[in-house]
Amino acid sequence: MSDKKIPYKIYLEESELPKAWYNLRADMKNKPAPLLDPATHKPMTAQALSGVFCDELIKQELDDSTPYFEIPEAIRDFYKMYRPAPLVRAYCLEEKLQTPAKIYYKFEGNNTSGSHKLNSAIAQAYYAKQQGLKGVTTETGAGQWGTALSMACSYFGLDCKVYMVKCSYEQKPFRREVMRTYGASVTPSPSMETEVGRKILAEHPGTTGSLGCAISEAVETATKSEGYRYVLGSVLNQVMLHQSVIGLETKAAMDKYGIKPDIIIGCAGGGSNLGGLIAPFMGEKVRGEADYHFIAVEPASCPSLTRGKYAYDYCDTGMVCPLAKMYTLGSGFIPSANHAGGLRYHGMSSTLSQLYDDGLMEARSVKQTEVFEAAEQFARVEGILPAPESSHAIRVAIDEALKCKETGEEKTILFGLTGTGYFDMLAYEKFHNGIMTDYIPTDEEIQANFAKLPKID
Amino acid sequence: MSDKKIPYKIYLEESELPKAWYNLRADMKNKPAPLLDPATHKPMTAQALSGVFCDELIKQELDDSTPYFEIPEAIRDFYKMYRPAPLVRAYCLEEKLQTPAKIYYKFEGNNTSGSHKLNSAIAQAYYAKQQGLKGVTTETGAGQWGTALSMACSYFGLDCKVYMVKCSYEQKPFRREVMRTYGASVTPSPSMETEVGRKILAEHPGTTGSLGCAISEAVETATKSEGYRYVLGSVLNQVMLHQSVIGLETKAAMDKYGIKPDIIIGCAGGGSNLGGLIAPFMGEKVRGEADYHFIAVEPASCPSLTRGKYAYDYCDTGMVCPLAKMYTLGSGFIPSANHAGGLRYHGMSSTLSQLYDDGLMEARSVKQTEVFEAAEQFARVEGILPAPESSHAIRVAIDEALKCKETGEEKTILFGLTGTGYFDMLAYEKFHNGIMTDYIPTDEEIQANFAKLPKID
Repeated sequence: MSDKKIPYKIYLEESELPKAWYNLRADMKNKPAPLLDPATHKPMTAQALSGVFCDELIKQELDDSTPYFEIPEAIRDFYKMYRPAPLVRAYCLEEKLQTPAKIYYKFEGNNTSGSHKLNSAIAQAYYAKQQGLKGVTTETGAGQWGTALSMACSYFGLDCKVYMVKCSYEQKPFRREVMRTYGASVTPSPSMETEVGRKILAEHPGTTGSLGCAISEAVETATKSEGYRYVLGSVLNQVMLHQSVIGLETKAAMDKYGIKPDIIIGCAGGGSNLGGLIAPFMGEKVRGEADYHFIAVEPASCPSLTRGKYAYDYCDTGMVCPLAKMYTLGSGFIPSANHAGGLRYHGMSSTLSQLYDDGLMEARSVKQTEVFEAAEQFARVEGILPAPESSHAIRVAIDEALKCKETGEEKTILFGLTGTGYFDMLAYEKFHNGIMTDYIPTDEEIQANFAKLPKID
Repeated sequence: MSDKKIPYKIYLEESELPKAWYNLRADMKNKPAPLLDPATHKPMTAQALSGVFCDELIKQELDDSTPYFEIPEAIRDFYKMYRPAPLVRAYCLEEKLQTPAKIYYKFEGNNTSGSHKLNSAIAQAYYAKQQGLKGVTTETGAGQWGTALSMACSYFGLDCKVYMVKCSYEQKPFRREVMRTYGASVTPSPSMETEVGRKILAEHPGTTGSLGCAISEAVETATKSEGYRYVLGSVLNQVMLHQSVIGLETKAAMDKYGIKPDIIIGCAGGGSNLGGLIAPFMGEKVRGEADYHFIAVEPASCPSLTRGKYAYDYCDTGMVCPLAKMYTLGSGFIPSANHAGGLRYHGMSSTLSQLYDDGLMEARSVKQTEVFEAAEQFARVEGILPAPESSHAIRVAIDEALKCKETGEEKTILFGLTGTGYFDMLAYEKFHNGIMTDYIPTDEEIQANFAKLPKID
């Protein structure tokens, strides 16, 4: 098919919105390792999890054999307000780079949360509402997940309590106001509101917070409040499941135009976007039906895949959550405050960790000044001002397109443009003013945290 | 056609993107009054305008008989990055209001400028580039136009110099960074850079600036710099022409589903969004082919249509621009600094002024606290966080839908959702904290400015 026939933006029809989420685990030969009880080191049961998570979400979390979960109609209706999301052909970027590569990106920023996070937020809020709960608690780093959850809770009339990593809370005051517009309450973490927060503040009085610490506070509040549960925006299997809507739409749009990607790139913090984007493609790969080159891109300042250890670890700083087997920098790892935006989590989704360990995926880490260079270059030709997180994927997409320019290969590159950077202008300002710096943890820093990994037989 | 068949979002195909802009003036029985030379009070000629505006844009400005202008391919290519824009059925808002009315909105915020302004910015930048210019100057209030122009100039490799109304510059520091991301320079106005700026600062040392004043500075800089011209984001006929793409797409989408609006609502500052949205519908009305109820919504703090005078006036504070006949509050009118967002211009597009004077359109003014109430209500059910400007239209759309609830009428209401409020969170914060106030100018304040209108025979 001639390139000219491929539009700038491929929009699926509303009727083509996926009717079921795809559970990649069902097709994986080596399943992700189960969550373990932090006290007994035995696999977590649904019952043990029921104080923390919603019942239906626990089912999704533990099920590694059912390949498809139907998307309830109420969630599909909400999806219709901002989905199907466009698959964009980056004609202008290709021209700017003078590359023979064909570049596509799935744009998930066309909604007020500014990111893909809404895909799972609305699902989690729905199941909480179905269970008759009063509200949910959560943590947020860059603020995208908190905003998404606020929107979802507002839609279903649920109370929403957000613990926001302190350095993001301070760098992004307007994010707080967006969440308040949707009726959520927002607390900087660590806070004096929780036992674990008070303990962390006592031990590290000047701490700028971390996702791991905010998770501990949110979990504590959920378990101590009647009618509340905790919800999480990344890392978990249930989140990967909901985010598969990204990949399913992308694949449907590509199939419609006979496009087959050679390289599929996504930024990776906890892994929700990457896991969602690659799901149906990786499904084909693990079933032996097709091959793709997958690249997970993480910040050099928080390099869980490229420099972490594949081991059981605590999901949170307070060690109140189940243990997960994942590539981890240790639950005590806190990225430098000079690191802008998200992708700050110490570990990586168990599913992605297993795929990476099985050699099914490449991982690269990139420095943030290089990331912002790519972001600005992209914005100037493609119009969209990208989130710092998404710009990690842009960086590698540009690198791969420039390789094609050298070799003359006409590769098809697909990447996930997870969101917009409208609330990240403080970081852009630092970049423009030439005062943005790079941070790469030393081997000693990383080893120090490995020493604190739990010992599992 | 059953309602159920109308999707949440109607996206036209890329191939259905309008191929020509519609020039409403060609169909108007009473043409808008011509621009006058401020010195001679004679109609401006193309030659006299050529030091200020680009040549092709002057042709468009002065032509009130050609009904269609072809959209150049390079502009259509750029449009394809964010157009066709969706026409959304506000199912969730209807349900929330329990109204029998059917509510639609044309959403123009799905691009980084966050508003419809990009539609004209890219056209103006294109013609500047075609003419071989080095760059353009402009003013911006809320920052949407400046952002749009920065993006457009970056795309075509033009220099872009923006004078930003001082109070907006201070309230919206991140807007500046977005413009810088696209390579523009941004100066708070009034500034010491221009003669007119220095004069205004000497007379009013504490002024928070106004659009009229920023226009004077931008025009002065353009006329004094080799290879530069001035471009404007609203008010002018050429801008109305470019913005007709909004209405043309809306009408095409509605026709496709057999929808006929009863009421068409738009916010009105200088009139670019409203003029663009209503163009093809008003065309039918003035040609006697159909009838619609048009409502222009303006802030009570800057009520040019509802409390202004229909007269020739200066377009700018420095009185360097041509005179335009319009509904005006006087070029010396500066809205209170407590007024959030845009819609701050003292006058209204000549085209819309003439239509209003001919009784073809209604105008209403609304108070800003009522506007933010509507904004928050809309955000919570429809997901999109609206710009304060757009929320003026939301306010009246909700009011009309509630009237339908009382009367039981199943009216079809269409409004323009011009943009998103991501850079207006300071105003939302004031609203959340209960410290937002309303400002309505006294009759004395308004009369005082009328006294300074130029005397035209």
